[in-house]
Amino acid sequence: MGRNYASNTDGDDMVGKVIACKAAVAYGPEQPLVMEEILVDPPQKMEVRIKILFTSICHTDLSAWQGENEAQRMYPRILGHEASGLVESVGEGVTDLEIGDHVVPIFNGECQDCAYCKSEKTNLCEKFRVNPFKGVMANDGKTRFTTKSDGKPIYHFLNTSTFSEYTVLDSACVVKIDKKAPLKKMSLLSCGVSTGLGAVWNTANVQAGATVAVFGLGAVGLAVVEGARTRGVSRIIGVDINPDKRFKGEAIGITDFINPKDMEKPVHQKIRELTNGGVHYSFECAGNLDVLREAFLSTHDGWGLTVVLGIHPTPRMLPLHPMELFDGRRIVGSVFGDFKGKSQLPHFANQCMNGEVKLDEFITHEMPFANINQALQLLIDGKSLRCLLHL
Amino acid sequence: MGRNYASNTDGDDMVGKVIACKAAVAYGPEQPLVMEEILVDPPQKMEVRIKILFTSICHTDLSAWQGENEAQRMYPRILGHEASGLVESVGEGVTDLEIGDHVVPIFNGECQDCAYCKSEKTNLCEKFRVNPFKGVMANDGKTRFTTKSDGKPIYHFLNTSTFSEYTVLDSACVVKIDKKAPLKKMSLLSCGVSTGLGAVWNTANVQAGATVAVFGLGAVGLAVVEGARTRGVSRIIGVDINPDKRFKGEAIGITDFINPKDMEKPVHQKIRELTNGGVHYSFECAGNLDVLREAFLSTHDGWGLTVVLGIHPTPRMLPLHPMELFDGRRIVGSVFGDFKGKSQLPHFANQCMNGEVKLDEFITHEMPFANINQALQLLIDGKSLRCLLHL
Ligand SMILES: [Zn+2]
Ligand SMILES: [Zn+2]
Ligand SMILES: [Zn+2]
Ligand SMILES: [Zn+2]
Repeated sequence: MGRNYASNTDGDDMVGKVIACKAAVAYGPEQPLVMEEILVDPPQKMEVRIKILFTSICHTDLSAWQGENEAQRMYPRILGHEASGLVESVGEGVTDLEIGDHVVPIFNGECQDCAYCKSEKTNLCEKFRVNPFKGVMANDGKTRFTTKSDGKPIYHFLNTSTFSEYTVLDSACVVKIDKKAPLKKMSLLSCGVSTGLGAVWNTANVQAGATVAVFGLGAVGLAVVEGARTRGVSRIIGVDINPDKRFKGEAIGITDFINPKDMEKPVHQKIRELTNGGVHYSFECAGNLDVLREAFLSTHDGWGLTVVLGIHPTPRMLPLHPMELFDGRRIVGSVFGDFKGKSQLPHFANQCMNGEVKLDEFITHEMPFANINQALQLLIDGKSLRCLLHL
Repeated sequence: MGRNYASNTDGDDMVGKVIACKAAVAYGPEQPLVMEEILVDPPQKMEVRIKILFTSICHTDLSAWQGENEAQRMYPRILGHEASGLVESVGEGVTDLEIGDHVVPIFNGECQDCAYCKSEKTNLCEKFRVNPFKGVMANDGKTRFTTKSDGKPIYHFLNTSTFSEYTVLDSACVVKIDKKAPLKKMSLLSCGVSTGLGAVWNTANVQAGATVAVFGLGAVGLAVVEGARTRGVSRIIGVDINPDKRFKGEAIGITDFINPKDMEKPVHQKIRELTNGGVHYSFECAGNLDVLREAFLSTHDGWGLTVVLGIHPTPRMLPLHPMELFDGRRIVGSVFGDFKGKSQLPHFANQCMNGEVKLDEFITHEMPFANINQALQLLIDGKSLRCLLHL
């Protein structure tokens, strides 16, 4: 190879050098991730290199790993977008972060300079919004990862690529949080928990006394439940075809549990009966269009709002008739809970630290990074919410 | 027959009696309306009988006349929902209206007492919202119209049935306006003009400086243009496949005209080029799903809002992919411009009277009520916006 690189244990000496470290590399759809030594370049202009301490697996990683969308298949690739860690070094021009900062990566970046970032109406940054087709850094169109064995580029994923001891991100995708915040839990803020709570707080702006239905009680759905609880809603109806979800749901705050498999009538009909015509807000966290339609119809006409959080890798269009829009039910999508990551996540982290938001229920498993394929299987089997991998 | 009835010319003597008068009766899909004498019962509890002075034809009448939706076919029936007139008599319990009041019928009633009417979020009344399948009065499930020849019931339409010299409505569907307001123009407030302006003012709440695209420049679309003009927007792009619409559009306020037939690229692409990424608001007034998709895509991602006003008598679902919701474009339906008719139309009428809103361009033809089939043909041929029929 002939490249100079520092090893993982060299400490500050690594600044400006290529780092050799362990990463879990994806080589093809549904192929077990390969834990191997890779090389991580130093951060370029406006980039940051992070030492990942904790990472977990979200359904978006799972979909990418399964290669659900053919156009998104690029290998080798380092997946992962939920994590927390420390700044190892910063590139030229980065002024808001320094070595040793406690940080959380965000896949939905915030450059704080584009028309979108300056608008109050959106959290979609022009440059660093979600783009599953992007596998290289914006600066030079190249990767910062290479295989140690043969120097081949390894693609990035969702602006983050956290299944690696070290990763390089644009500084727009790195949020600095309070050093007192427990980094283990803070990794949850990278995606699922922020997405769910933010959908309640920011997208729907649910008010006390409202009624809420949550379709799909995975980590995102349960984060919606937690968000609704913090807003003091009067009723939270959880819907899931997995009967075990009832218990976790109740631990966090659902007041009613509906298993569609136990129903003879459509779920929306049952929910309308329970709530005098329908809930104020429904949240679709299942990524299934039939569920989406039930979520839509379960809200009250005239003022119901359905927030779509689920990822829908399907060629099907929305199963809603245009005339149904005239019943006053609305539907909107929510990305990263409409949080502007760099601006708003530090405050959210504080809310989690001071107990306003409870994160304990979300981490169901912990294991060493080396066991990542086992963690993947737990998620596939619906047995884990978040399995925290220790790096 | 054996029923006692007063003739149209008996004046106050008609109160409490059946009135014999002329109406244009629909007997089947696409059959010319039959101008004939009918009998109109006195108003029952909370009902009002109105002497119609002016009426016009809207596309919803046209659709009903064409029998587009089989389930809505009921004959004989008196269509019509845009009109103005005078209160002839009121039924028991009606306290907000009296004989001689200047009034405008509204198909989207406001009982002012139900949970919907008391909510600020909707103008859909629980009892008197639009229901094209309803052909009888709510009080007793019967009609107030009968044929004079053989005493058969004649069905009502859209809570209004204005193609008659006299009609009976629930008082929730009758708006009292200032006696100084010109009744001729006020008939426009019954539907098209309120629907278009209200969509801009109430549903979208368009602000000065915004950019707007209007798809379909019929009366409703042009009312959207007028609404956008009154809000001081920076650009109004009109879209229509009829090149003649450009001139009417420009007279009211469009700054750009696009004829999709003259375009090699999709309209939304052209609009994005013209507006630095897309308009803030688009309004779909064409009742066509391919147009709806273009309208949706013509807004700016992150904050674009599409308001659907067109009626879509199609079995097709919305041609939008669920993942497209994550680009931050929103879509909502708007019924009667989100106006609460009884509460808000009197003020709107004043705004029209004092010149804030200009109605002159909307009345393109006038003729006697007897010529109603000719007026219908003008609308079918796309030659009229509103043809005002004088009763
Ligand atoms: Zn995620
Ligand atoms: Zn930005
Ligand atoms: Zn109409
Ligand atoms: Zn009402």
